[in-house]
Amino acid sequence: MPRVTLLDVAKAAAVSKMTASRALREHSDVAAETRERVRKVAAEMGYVPNQMASMLSAKSSLIIPMIIPSISNSVFADIVAHAQPLLLEAGFQMMLFNTDYSLDQEEKAIAALMAWSPAAFILSGVDHTEQSKLQLKNAGFPVVEMMDLTEDPIDLAVGFDHFLAGADMARYLIGRGYKRFAFCGNQLNMDTRAYKRFVGFRDTLQANGFIEPSLFNIDEPEGVLTQDVFQSMVNAKDGLDCIYFSNDDLAISALLLCARLGISVPDQLAIAGFNDIPLGRQITPRLTTTRTPRGLIGEKTAQYALDAIKRKEGIPRVLDLKSELVPRESA
Amino acid sequence: MPRVTLLDVAKAAAVSKMTASRALREHSDVAAETRERVRKVAAEMGYVPNQMASMLSAKSSLIIPMIIPSISNSVFADIVAHAQPLLLEAGFQMMLFNTDYSLDQEEKAIAALMAWSPAAFILSGVDHTEQSKLQLKNAGFPVVEMMDLTEDPIDLAVGFDHFLAGADMARYLIGRGYKRFAFCGNQLNMDTRAYKRFVGFRDTLQANGFIEPSLFNIDEPEGVLTQDVFQSMVNAKDGLDCIYFSNDDLAISALLLCARLGISVPDQLAIAGFNDIPLGRQITPRLTTTRTPRGLIGEKTAQYALDAIKRKEGIPRVLDLKSELVPRESA
Repeated sequence: MPRVTLLDVAKAAAVSKMTASRALREHSDVAAETRERVRKVAAEMGYVPNQMASMLSAKSSLIIPMIIPSISNSVFADIVAHAQPLLLEAGFQMMLFNTDYSLDQEEKAIAALMAWSPAAFILSGVDHTEQSKLQLKNAGFPVVEMMDLTEDPIDLAVGFDHFLAGADMARYLIGRGYKRFAFCGNQLNMDTRAYKRFVGFRDTLQANGFIEPSLFNIDEPEGVLTQDVFQSMVNAKDGLDCIYFSNDDLAISALLLCARLGISVPDQLAIAGFNDIPLGRQITPRLTTTRTPRGLIGEKTAQYALDAIKRKEGIPRVLDLKSELVPRESA
Repeated sequence: MPRVTLLDVAKAAAVSKMTASRALREHSDVAAETRERVRKVAAEMGYVPNQMASMLSAKSSLIIPMIIPSISNSVFADIVAHAQPLLLEAGFQMMLFNTDYSLDQEEKAIAALMAWSPAAFILSGVDHTEQSKLQLKNAGFPVVEMMDLTEDPIDLAVGFDHFLAGADMARYLIGRGYKRFAFCGNQLNMDTRAYKRFVGFRDTLQANGFIEPSLFNIDEPEGVLTQDVFQSMVNAKDGLDCIYFSNDDLAISALLLCARLGISVPDQLAIAGFNDIPLGRQITPRLTTTRTPRGLIGEKTAQYALDAIKRKEGIPRVLDLKSELVPRESA
């Protein structure tokens, strides 16, 4: 299955290679009838012009990469669902790279992508290797960092404050009267945003006279909370009455396991999550969580990337879209 | 923020542009000390060689695109989790394109990607536009179609039989004594694999003397089963005693809504899903479903793509990895 070349098309259309090339570039030297015939033959044979060659003279490609840390976290699916239509409509193709929260893998993906001259670049979070930052700062195309905030973005940051989200949840749970807390996350050594929420949660508890919350780290890419792990978590700390999970998926597993183990929520154990996914509104008891502005992050990220490509004025360097605590029945 | 050029690097390293270029390509004409200095300066400045230019002479890039129909369907996250490590380890970068089940969007992504000379190409399903098939057949790189089977793959197909999976579930549910059936899916006009399962389910019911199952189509990209829609579904058909959902996410929402609405499962209504995701084992009652070989599909797809790039012998044209019905408590 060799690739169809321009010469193959020229032969099949019974013209010279030069004429075929001109016909496909809509050159007016070639008769309209011939142009039409060559185009038809090229389409039938599945011929694609070598875009790499034709793009060398242009400044950039029509491709916008988005680097996401986890394809199994539904938060990023929501962001893609809101960003992609805007980018497609503007004539760009969005490609996704999954890094499994590895900044090293992110650096390699950036290095590979730089050579393709993307029109703009979207990545997750504000924590990157020095080499990644250096490459993107010198890249000559707009860079949007999404999901988190920083005082020093590469170009633009669109997100919300994770430390504050954790601190808000601590204050709410203190107000509900809980006393012995735990925080449970996944890959916390790599998921820097979840770790920032833990720090906000811990610092606020300690500032209010509570002891440091226990920290549980599941530490596997799929991030599944099994019954064994949950049971050992519940048994590990005497008097534990509240667990704050780093995402709703884990919190919903915990609610299902509580039902299975006969643990009454919130009376015996309170459960809080993060993100506000639809299942959390359907489960009984309904999940107390923090709503993250995922759709808006996707839209604003795409919009600012497009605005920056067009060199529009007045794009903010940092856009804080804020998260919102949603009190329900589970805590 | 202009892009760092070779000339910038040459100036900073106090060498000519020609020497800088040779140094970066490890040319032996350039003294080792100079090569080292130029490399160091280039790294510090974030310089990236123009790979498009350097790759024109080679046959293909180190990029392997994977087209997936839905980033919000966790099935594809599992496939990526199993395929990506193998491709990365072999020195390739995997890029993802999300089509929202649109074959038209798939065709556009293929056209855009063809020009980048991928090393191999992975796509989902065996249903594509004529133009997509033609382009890929003439592409000159290996193409793997995953998740479904066909007698006429572009190159290789790795998946399982969706018609059979639907037929198996019909036979199981008939055996459990249910009488009035419904099938509920999402975007069934675009999700051809779910529709094949519906056809297998319907044909088997009818062949066994049952009336045609009701068909419910949620038809929105996020695919959320709301309480209103579920209630109208349950009320629509007199004597309905069993719903087969096109995926576990919908079936789990249904189980949570049954608990909320006081519908006893499986006594008043039986619920079956598809995929076997972890939550289905944690919910009460546990979900009856079909286990799909997602991890294995990801692994085999990556392995065969790599084997085909290396032109290994003996790669099967079609690999049937089979699905397996998992009877539990919900039906």
